[in-house]
Amino acid sequence: MDIFKFKTLALRRAVSLMLIAMAITLFSSGRATAQQKKQVVRLAKIQVDPAQLESYKVALKEGIETAVRVEPGVLTYYAVADKDNPAHITILEIYADSVAYKAHIETAHFKKYKNTVKDMVKSLELVDVNLVAVAKKPGL
Amino acid sequence: MDIFKFKTLALRRAVSLMLIAMAITLFSSGRATAQQKKQVVRLAKIQVDPAQLESYKVALKEGIETAVRVEPGVLTYYAVADKDNPAHITILEIYADSVAYKAHIETAHFKKYKNTVKDMVKSLELVDVNLVAVAKKPGL
Repeated sequence: MDIFKFKTLALRRAVSLMLIAMAITLFSSGRATAQQKKQVVRLAKIQVDPAQLESYKVALKEGIETAVRVEPGVLTYYAVADKDNPAHITILEIYADSVAYKAHIETAHFKKYKNTVKDMVKSLELVDVNLVAVAKKPGL
Repeated sequence: MDIFKFKTLALRRAVSLMLIAMAITLFSSGRATAQQKKQVVRLAKIQVDPAQLESYKVALKEGIETAVRVEPGVLTYYAVADKDNPAHITILEIYADSVAYKAHIETAHFKKYKNTVKDMVKSLELVDVNLVAVAKKPGL
């Protein structure tokens, strides 16, 4: 195909760099194990006051989206609600390491979240866990 | 820069397609809400026989990695073990929709997993949940 007959060295280099970047993205899961060993992973089990559930969800979304956006070491949050008990929330939290986690709980956005929800949360159980296995479609 | 002075239309097109693909990857999280509403999301809470824990983990990893690799509608698994009780496993499971989930439990690899672990699993609780919020670093 014509598009692969590159005329200049610079262009060949640029395309090579793009392909390398794509390869790194595609195969990054293979590099995860060493990184995963340092990660702080936790399940937060939260019983919310049902009357304040929607307000709680708004505060939670803002808190986790801000943390992931601005803190390099805040990696992943999945928050789910039991279908049979929607005020029972479970959050899977993944931080790059314990330094990242300690920095996280000192941020203004985390303190704002904790202060906002303090009268919405009826109980909170934190369970420290280790990742056993992760399998995901690429890009999810 | 010289590398952006593309000489041929075909090349310009190829580079544009690459950039579009990258943009779709970067911004795909914004398209997720409509898809998420159809998803089947679940927490599986499993107490494994501690004496068979390593064998269980091997079977679990093989099962989830195969499912994500070969089934289009099997999206995500995170399996974690309590630090204080490593034989207590929690799995967050996400399927594209109920059709994908029903297809999954009929596959040969799922049946192989269930058969392999049937004497390793002491108890299994399945909790149907809804996603409340997800926040992740791009590419994770």
